[in-house]
Amino acid sequence: MALEALRYRRGSLQVLNQLLLPHTSVYEEVSTVQQGWEAIRSMKVRGAPAIAIVGCLSLAVELHNGNKRTKEELVAFILDSLKYLVTSRPTAVNMARAATELSAFVELEAGKPDSTSETIQDCVIQWAEDMLAKDISDNRRIGDHGAQHILQGSSGQNIVVLTHCNTGSLATAGYGTALGVVRSLHATGRLAHVYCTETRPYNQGARLTAYELVYEKIPSTLLADSMASLAMKEKTVSAVIVGADRVVANGDTANKVGTYQLAIAAKYHGVPFYVAAPSTSCDLSLEEGRQIVIEERPGKELTDVNGIRIAAPGIGVWNPAFDVTPADLITGGIITELGVFPPQELRVALSKSVKVN
Amino acid sequence: MALEALRYRRGSLQVLNQLLLPHTSVYEEVSTVQQGWEAIRSMKVRGAPAIAIVGCLSLAVELHNGNKRTKEELVAFILDSLKYLVTSRPTAVNMARAATELSAFVELEAGKPDSTSETIQDCVIQWAEDMLAKDISDNRRIGDHGAQHILQGSSGQNIVVLTHCNTGSLATAGYGTALGVVRSLHATGRLAHVYCTETRPYNQGARLTAYELVYEKIPSTLLADSMASLAMKEKTVSAVIVGADRVVANGDTANKVGTYQLAIAAKYHGVPFYVAAPSTSCDLSLEEGRQIVIEERPGKELTDVNGIRIAAPGIGVWNPAFDVTPADLITGGIITELGVFPPQELRVALSKSVKVN
Repeated sequence: MALEALRYRRGSLQVLNQLLLPHTSVYEEVSTVQQGWEAIRSMKVRGAPAIAIVGCLSLAVELHNGNKRTKEELVAFILDSLKYLVTSRPTAVNMARAATELSAFVELEAGKPDSTSETIQDCVIQWAEDMLAKDISDNRRIGDHGAQHILQGSSGQNIVVLTHCNTGSLATAGYGTALGVVRSLHATGRLAHVYCTETRPYNQGARLTAYELVYEKIPSTLLADSMASLAMKEKTVSAVIVGADRVVANGDTANKVGTYQLAIAAKYHGVPFYVAAPSTSCDLSLEEGRQIVIEERPGKELTDVNGIRIAAPGIGVWNPAFDVTPADLITGGIITELGVFPPQELRVALSKSVKVN
Repeated sequence: MALEALRYRRGSLQVLNQLLLPHTSVYEEVSTVQQGWEAIRSMKVRGAPAIAIVGCLSLAVELHNGNKRTKEELVAFILDSLKYLVTSRPTAVNMARAATELSAFVELEAGKPDSTSETIQDCVIQWAEDMLAKDISDNRRIGDHGAQHILQGSSGQNIVVLTHCNTGSLATAGYGTALGVVRSLHATGRLAHVYCTETRPYNQGARLTAYELVYEKIPSTLLADSMASLAMKEKTVSAVIVGADRVVANGDTANKVGTYQLAIAAKYHGVPFYVAAPSTSCDLSLEEGRQIVIEERPGKELTDVNGIRIAAPGIGVWNPAFDVTPADLITGGIITELGVFPPQELRVALSKSVKVN
């Protein structure tokens, strides 16, 4: 059975507490918006797509199980809840986009003369459920587009992939983005090996990606982040594939810290560098990467492991959670559910098919 | 008082167990060659210069306190001990070089008609003690040459340094190589800030360099290895300075894994990249970096922290301890006790003053 980051049926949402992986699999009930916010903030659930889905489903569950409200009370509650959910993690665009779209949708619905509390509530629940279903089908498309593109460029060689952070079933509703491409490559029988970085300071690679790769029996090896360049030099890496927290109009991409360094190394070694992301992670309202707000997280994530301090007491710490990779380093392309695009073509490709915020 | 990696007086050697830092400072007695080998192998002491010094001093102490031997027994014991010490860690050249030189010296001394067990023993002890004294004076010269070179290129700006691994008092007999340059810069009052990488998987930066920087009250910040490129982009880094385990004739340099990646990032950002190493770390008998044997260490160093597994069970691990930075990425120069040289001039500069193995 495929790995599940979340389990949902109408009125019930459970989230796999990823802080306890790889040792323990515990699903925790999320019944309210507040619990959804906390699960995201504490990183029990992470990954830009999964954050938005858990946020919206937490609202759907609270609505389904909650008290009756007047139409006005309900609309105010929904809009406030969505604003609040956006504050849980600042860098990922998906939750902000979902909040904007769902808010507009609710206001439209509420403006209809025959709408009631019940119709509005049903619309919101259905919207969140559709989002869940779409994420999985989009990821399968991302995986297949990416695999096809990489195989076309491979001149018949089997593929060695290097990836960063976790972008798999655990970061999405299922299947994954960059790791979805890995899954699709594996399904073709043409995947030779995957190298995954441990992804300091939070070790998403060592804990989560490694867990998924072992779970799926994909031949794979864990590396320290600092070893990626050596791997590109010594291990005939065919492609570096990463996910994205936000891709902006010119193709600049915010992703887990370390992505920028990998892209520089890939360029140096002539290894194609791909970003895999659903079009919902693309934010055409921002022109350039430097406009993206980068989240800084507590230094303790870097200095302590499992509650034990490893760093010398008294040292200052800088802990940016993300960095921005400029479009010109994304040499392979941006893999979306709509196809694979060179960064400079992304805006036109998405403008044709995606509503801009 | 300066931080001491080892405490020596004739007949007694104590080594600071660096595995217990930064929490506990414990000096452990090293009375025999076997104990010296074990302290090096287990990484209680590390850093290319310190390895060689502890190896040779462990022999000096065992000789001083040992039983009487015939001249032949003594020479055989010394030569065997030196061969054995070289096997403790394969990548660092300093122990191999010291073994070669000291062996030749002992054979020369033993060949003199009036030599006795006593004269040979005294020669070896004195040789090891001279090595200790020379390391400290060489490091001060490295520090001063490096600081001067960097300040000359700085157009009056204060200096921001990024460094990797530990190359300070704890990696040498005292003062340090790359961190010696940092100390010398700090002494001029022109050092603005130091960024040190945590240096996975063994965390020498987080544990040891951070410890030394705090100890010396040098303004400093700890980073994950993956954040170095972002720091170069955002924090106006003036120079990257690293140590070396071995520099070969063409200037290619083996150093702690991650150095190669930092050098690529420095080149991309136009930041001068310096290697600081005593001439004893230079091995002109090897032509190119690819001839250097790179030590691979147990995967457990990467998957476990403080005895607790952090990585998913079942994942494969690659754990090379070093990588080789090609000479053309060493854009600042190679800082030795004899001066700062562009990599391509190293061979000529050293051939003038250093005996080649």
